[in-house]
Amino acid sequence: MKLYKKSDDTSYTLGVFPTIELLKTRPKDVVRVIVHSSIEKNNGYPLIQELCQQYHIHIDIHDKTIDKLSPKNNCFAIAVFKKYRSQIIDGNHVVLVNPMDMGNMGTIMRTMLGFNYTNLIIIRPAVDIFDPKVVRSSMGAIFHLNIQYYDSFSTYYKQFQHHEFYPLMLKGAKNIHKVSTNHIHSLVFGNESCGLPDEYLEYGQSVFIPHTSYIDSLNLSMALGLTLFHFSKGMFIDQSVLRNQFE
Amino acid sequence: MKLYKKSDDTSYTLGVFPTIELLKTRPKDVVRVIVHSSIEKNNGYPLIQELCQQYHIHIDIHDKTIDKLSPKNNCFAIAVFKKYRSQIIDGNHVVLVNPMDMGNMGTIMRTMLGFNYTNLIIIRPAVDIFDPKVVRSSMGAIFHLNIQYYDSFSTYYKQFQHHEFYPLMLKGAKNIHKVSTNHIHSLVFGNESCGLPDEYLEYGQSVFIPHTSYIDSLNLSMALGLTLFHFSKGMFIDQSVLRNQFE
Repeated sequence: MKLYKKSDDTSYTLGVFPTIELLKTRPKDVVRVIVHSSIEKNNGYPLIQELCQQYHIHIDIHDKTIDKLSPKNNCFAIAVFKKYRSQIIDGNHVVLVNPMDMGNMGTIMRTMLGFNYTNLIIIRPAVDIFDPKVVRSSMGAIFHLNIQYYDSFSTYYKQFQHHEFYPLMLKGAKNIHKVSTNHIHSLVFGNESCGLPDEYLEYGQSVFIPHTSYIDSLNLSMALGLTLFHFSKGMFIDQSVLRNQFE
Repeated sequence: MKLYKKSDDTSYTLGVFPTIELLKTRPKDVVRVIVHSSIEKNNGYPLIQELCQQYHIHIDIHDKTIDKLSPKNNCFAIAVFKKYRSQIIDGNHVVLVNPMDMGNMGTIMRTMLGFNYTNLIIIRPAVDIFDPKVVRSSMGAIFHLNIQYYDSFSTYYKQFQHHEFYPLMLKGAKNIHKVSTNHIHSLVFGNESCGLPDEYLEYGQSVFIPHTSYIDSLNLSMALGLTLFHFSKGMFIDQSVLRNQFE
């Protein structure tokens, strides 16, 4: 096995936890599972074995492959999977315009899943979501999301014009604390280092997150987390509703 | 110059931005500034020169020192400073119980500064805030905060009993969306991997951040960001107040 390249047809998980998430959510895409001989001690291994048996997936014990693919030598399991296309559905969306940071992307996926935003639109050029670094930092959240790339924002915008659009911008017109909605919406975020260009002020209701002037801006994953927390408040304010829906 | 050790009396900034923040906020603690010969092209260098001249701080050009101390060779300036003690003042507090992750600590400091929480209490055992990795990841926010270590939470608690206490816990009794206060308060967070022990349910009003059961928990810096965003809402809801106070 070779280190991942963007042009490959397959990618792989690194670690027991994302491997379990993959086996649970997309077993048909798994090509094979490779484990380190020392995995026997790991609590998650019985579940990996059970899922692999259930879906007739072969487990190889092969320390050299693990050592080669695992950057920090702290990984006991790898699942090789066919890269798949998922399709967003109509519902609340998160739109990332030109995201480039792999670690951020994983955190974002995990935060989205936490606040029940399961549709992610990525406007190219952008990071490769199937890079093992993204898969790993998402802790498997990637397998629960519908993710679709678009070549331009305007193509996406035309398709979902019935949404309310909220571009998050330092120059945004409205304080997030004064924004609320029950309508289907798209939350739009710019690139990690430069944010959204000014033209996005024209799409829907631009929003800013107020903070002191001691810092230039919040980082992307933090801004996204705060925004999802704010916009999903209605869904989470009543604990009993939450328990019914998600537990 | 040697790589930082916890027992050293001095530490150092890595990078132009935190060096400027240090020179602006605590010039008397700066021992000397060392720059890389290629700093001439950097936009921040004139300001470093101006501040050093103003405070009679010597600038050395010494590439070898920079290369040795900078882990990724992407650093153009280092300021060596005497480690100082700062004291918290009575006001809203953030309390971290046994934080261990250096990168998280920097993000937390930056987020605190963004939401105008300027007093940080750290309960030992804990990460060394003066480690250059923390200073760097805080992007200089560390120099704007009052930070004080305590050996036990109960000592801190006794001293600030007039505060409202809000321990953030997965088992917390109240949904954060239903909590609000205008009273002086302490927001209490546990360690990155295990959170707060159950005994903290007895201190004040324990709070949980509701999320789907697809994720186990939010990471510490995200949970802290959401909490500060929520509790500081009153201060930031009126943009004009914000502009007056902070700009």
